[in-house]
Amino acid sequence: MLRQVTLEDIRSIGIGAGILGTGGGGNPYLGGLHLASVIRHHGPQPLIDPFQLADEALVCVAGNIGAPTVSIEKLPEGTEMLRALRLLEAHIGREFDAIAIAEIGGANSMQPLICGLLAGIPTVDSDSMGRAFPEIQMSSFLFDSAATAAPLAMVDAADNAAVLPAAISDRWAEKMARNIAVSMGARAGLVGTIMSGAQLKASGVHYTMSLAHQLGCRVIEAQAQKRDVPQVVADELDGQVLFRGKISDVHRRTTAGFARGSVRIDSFTPLAPPDKSGGSLHIEFQNELLIARVNGAVAVTTPDLICIVTAEEGEPVTTELLRYGTRVAVIAVPAPPQLKSENALRVVGPGAFGYDVAFRPLPGGVIGRRPKGS
Amino acid sequence: MLRQVTLEDIRSIGIGAGILGTGGGGNPYLGGLHLASVIRHHGPQPLIDPFQLADEALVCVAGNIGAPTVSIEKLPEGTEMLRALRLLEAHIGREFDAIAIAEIGGANSMQPLICGLLAGIPTVDSDSMGRAFPEIQMSSFLFDSAATAAPLAMVDAADNAAVLPAAISDRWAEKMARNIAVSMGARAGLVGTIMSGAQLKASGVHYTMSLAHQLGCRVIEAQAQKRDVPQVVADELDGQVLFRGKISDVHRRTTAGFARGSVRIDSFTPLAPPDKSGGSLHIEFQNELLIARVNGAVAVTTPDLICIVTAEEGEPVTTELLRYGTRVAVIAVPAPPQLKSENALRVVGPGAFGYDVAFRPLPGGVIGRRPKGS
Repeated sequence: MLRQVTLEDIRSIGIGAGILGTGGGGNPYLGGLHLASVIRHHGPQPLIDPFQLADEALVCVAGNIGAPTVSIEKLPEGTEMLRALRLLEAHIGREFDAIAIAEIGGANSMQPLICGLLAGIPTVDSDSMGRAFPEIQMSSFLFDSAATAAPLAMVDAADNAAVLPAAISDRWAEKMARNIAVSMGARAGLVGTIMSGAQLKASGVHYTMSLAHQLGCRVIEAQAQKRDVPQVVADELDGQVLFRGKISDVHRRTTAGFARGSVRIDSFTPLAPPDKSGGSLHIEFQNELLIARVNGAVAVTTPDLICIVTAEEGEPVTTELLRYGTRVAVIAVPAPPQLKSENALRVVGPGAFGYDVAFRPLPGGVIGRRPKGS
Repeated sequence: MLRQVTLEDIRSIGIGAGILGTGGGGNPYLGGLHLASVIRHHGPQPLIDPFQLADEALVCVAGNIGAPTVSIEKLPEGTEMLRALRLLEAHIGREFDAIAIAEIGGANSMQPLICGLLAGIPTVDSDSMGRAFPEIQMSSFLFDSAATAAPLAMVDAADNAAVLPAAISDRWAEKMARNIAVSMGARAGLVGTIMSGAQLKASGVHYTMSLAHQLGCRVIEAQAQKRDVPQVVADELDGQVLFRGKISDVHRRTTAGFARGSVRIDSFTPLAPPDKSGGSLHIEFQNELLIARVNGAVAVTTPDLICIVTAEEGEPVTTELLRYGTRVAVIAVPAPPQLKSENALRVVGPGAFGYDVAFRPLPGGVIGRRPKGS
């Protein structure tokens, strides 16, 4: 178990959270540079076991809202998370005891560390997805809980700020926050989903920062040993390598505060009956990769994870980095159980994104379990 | 001078503010029904002379933000103004002493009365436009003043709420507020532009509620006397009847939180050289009527007022009511001097709306002057 995050951990977390993020969460390399600069100034950030939290502790999540494609074009000012946190504290008249992770994806795995460091409070080793999702209401902290997405606070790189004191539902909080994020250039720092320690313990996907770190370490090891890194990733996450090939087409538009589009990956070998190996894989995304079809047939859907990594190095290929010609492997990973309840599937299943297909869960899964060897 | 607003004043104010609103501000008939129900319950609303305000009094504006086309489809819950006011008071930790008028246009002339009545504080007989404009920064309270549009608070007919504590400029406050209004269904109650009594006295367009009331009274009188009502309106406002004809085409789309489009009015007589009477008039609008061209030549531009009234009764035809076949008169009215300074024209002149034409002010004008006979 990771007990603090130091400069040495950033690369591993960036790789692990880049993979778990299923394309979203913002660019992990840029997020890592930001985190490194803050750690250099303030020292390592303590990471606490969720079950160390007092039941009455006051916790919230912190992260960026917007389109990952924008995250590599519009850099942060640096204090967005802290300013949003202070704004929310002023609004509710209380101070937070710890920061939880909204999504263990890309740069958004690092924002709660940056926020905690700047505010002088610990980060909790627990997130609400065990992956990344594009919308605020897609959070295990909210599915079966009295917690709500609003009140929330948002700030941009300049001095624009917004507080949403209340929303009629978490989906409406998302609608309003998304439009504010669009006004802020499709990138804003957001702090919200206020909850107690007891609520976090009951609803979080735990130990995912440790998992991201461990996954990243395994990738770095396997790279050094020149092993089949995508297979190592799949094994580590109890998943499977679904496809290997070359990106042959990317459709992408940054619209309504999201990066939406699709990517086609052609196998190195043509489609060969009867086993139907080869051919092509087609993935649709809304910030995150949502549905994968192999030669037209649905192979994996949200909430199970669809992870694209480079074919050789097994490094994450996030949505904003998808481009023609990259040789990749696609890994399918079982979602944590918190995302598969009836209430959860209503919010994060294929139907929530407009796909008229059933969710057929991949068997097994390790996300949310206490990491091996800890 | 009007010293209070009673049930009997509502129809006159609705007519006058409907005309001064140059198409925008929301439907005055529906706004009048709402105001009547509140006055029936709480009694008349006191209207105070701006120069009665203490210099240190705390004042803000209240009104609806959104598209006038939506104002006749999505009715208010009724307490939007009060809830937004209370939210803003909680945010700044102070209570307001009086409510000023954002725009003396359509239903937005009535919202500050409703807000004041429900909150138990007076309404100031002063607005920031002497007409209506589509965007928040288009306010004489802001042009040459230290006042800013943010902090502001917004609520919708349900329990969705937002506070903008700060914006880097009034234009950015507009951008954010507009997108929030879109999330709220293109209609929301907004309270903001916090200022002192001294600031209001220095920057407001004064006595415009009294002016709207007096204008409405003149229209009603002229209707009873079967006079040429459009000419009476023009005389009352030191303007001129620019055109008479029939609406022959309306292009209108409700987009990005505005009603945008154009209207074409054909004369009852064909274009007749050499005096070029007749022909057609073309007006473009963004909530409000912005530029009028007679037979292709620019005749009137913002900030001067372009007012459409019915040909016979001289009743205002607001943007949401424009439709094929209505017989109308178009009246051009000189804007108040507060809208014609260099700073003001940068925000409300033709260039601010993307028109590459010079503003050629109509001579004269009475808006913002103490009404005759008071």
